[in-house]
Amino acid sequence: MKGIKNMKFIPNLSYDCVIFGFNGKTLKILILEYHNTGLFALPGGFIKKNQSLQDAVNKGVEERTGIKDVFLDQFQIFGDPERADPIAMRRILEANNQDLKKNEWMMGRFITVGHYALINYEDVDPKPDHLSDSIDWYDINSVPKLMMDHNEIVDRALEVLRNNISEKIIGMNLLPPKFTMKQLQQVFEAILDQTLRRTSFQRKMLSLDILQRHEKLFEGKAHKAPYLYSFK
Amino acid sequence: MKGIKNMKFIPNLSYDCVIFGFNGKTLKILILEYHNTGLFALPGGFIKKNQSLQDAVNKGVEERTGIKDVFLDQFQIFGDPERADPIAMRRILEANNQDLKKNEWMMGRFITVGHYALINYEDVDPKPDHLSDSIDWYDINSVPKLMMDHNEIVDRALEVLRNNISEKIIGMNLLPPKFTMKQLQQVFEAILDQTLRRTSFQRKMLSLDILQRHEKLFEGKAHKAPYLYSFK
Repeated sequence: MKGIKNMKFIPNLSYDCVIFGFNGKTLKILILEYHNTGLFALPGGFIKKNQSLQDAVNKGVEERTGIKDVFLDQFQIFGDPERADPIAMRRILEANNQDLKKNEWMMGRFITVGHYALINYEDVDPKPDHLSDSIDWYDINSVPKLMMDHNEIVDRALEVLRNNISEKIIGMNLLPPKFTMKQLQQVFEAILDQTLRRTSFQRKMLSLDILQRHEKLFEGKAHKAPYLYSFK
Repeated sequence: MKGIKNMKFIPNLSYDCVIFGFNGKTLKILILEYHNTGLFALPGGFIKKNQSLQDAVNKGVEERTGIKDVFLDQFQIFGDPERADPIAMRRILEANNQDLKKNEWMMGRFITVGHYALINYEDVDPKPDHLSDSIDWYDINSVPKLMMDHNEIVDRALEVLRNNISEKIIGMNLLPPKFTMKQLQQVFEAILDQTLRRTSFQRKMLSLDILQRHEKLFEGKAHKAPYLYSFK
């Protein structure tokens, strides 16, 4: 039993979190920078031997980002043995004066469970943990080079978010309780980063059966007034 | 370094596979029974220390079921520490005359990566591996009691299949190259195990933008003939 053995965490398994922030206009993502290394990464961590994955993710995200109660969905496992980057991990450990022998397990291979969430970045104030210099929101179109395969993880999470946008938007309170189809379309356009056709957007939304139609919004000529909707 | 150490596989991590079989009429699931134990389980296995998860799953499924080239999608990780069942695992090892000491790692806790696939069970002939007495297709409504949390894994996979049915059906060649909306609806009804309304089914399908419309199927009165469709 040498010093290299890790007694606390499940070896070779980690989680990483893509936390999207959206205020109704701009889509951002939460990235941290490790002390004195110039290395950028997603918030992530390990699972204790007697801890559920869910619990590890919930507690880890709070510890690493300072943000509470983020509901994260698993979206993909990244299981390529080549994704390990022991050199980067060594730099982080050294820059933080961590015992290399004791932490040698961290330089092994990790299969990581990708998680993602969508929150309103105006509601939270992220704080860096003891390993990180900074934690910040980056515009989705100007994400820096991240360590390991974290850029790929971001790209996949973005695909999954865009495929599940209706479901994610419903819980977010980005719109007033009653809103017009046009307001809803603007939110979708911002996240999808594309212009949508009004008629097909409206048809799609109505077919999803997530909207309740209310009275018209009267603000001018009555026959042109749009209907108001709320989420069911 | 005692005999209990497992040198070959990543500890505490496994995969399990829900292989749905569907012939256009009945939905079934592939289940194996371990030698002399009365224990039923999903096909699953472990990941070698230098092996990609994808590779482990592909090879493992072929070894355990005799079925080649099944394309499996990850759908969820099951990470509760309580899902371990060391007593059942011990029974399987004993019934197969495996060295308990050498395989003690198998009685530990496992986080498992759930995978699922949908194939036509008429196209394949599953064969049990050396640990199993039998491997068989079970009707989805008469799945036996499975070991550990495998019944829960089946239930979750079924939800995911039903939520992704359009995508899964497209690749399956269950329908002739050109088919009517009614034929397509019958396939959906069988997998979803519910009756669908003709008009809303048609509207939904057309809005998904997966169908190409062709000429009408002429088999009687021309004005009543249904259109033929193919997948785009």
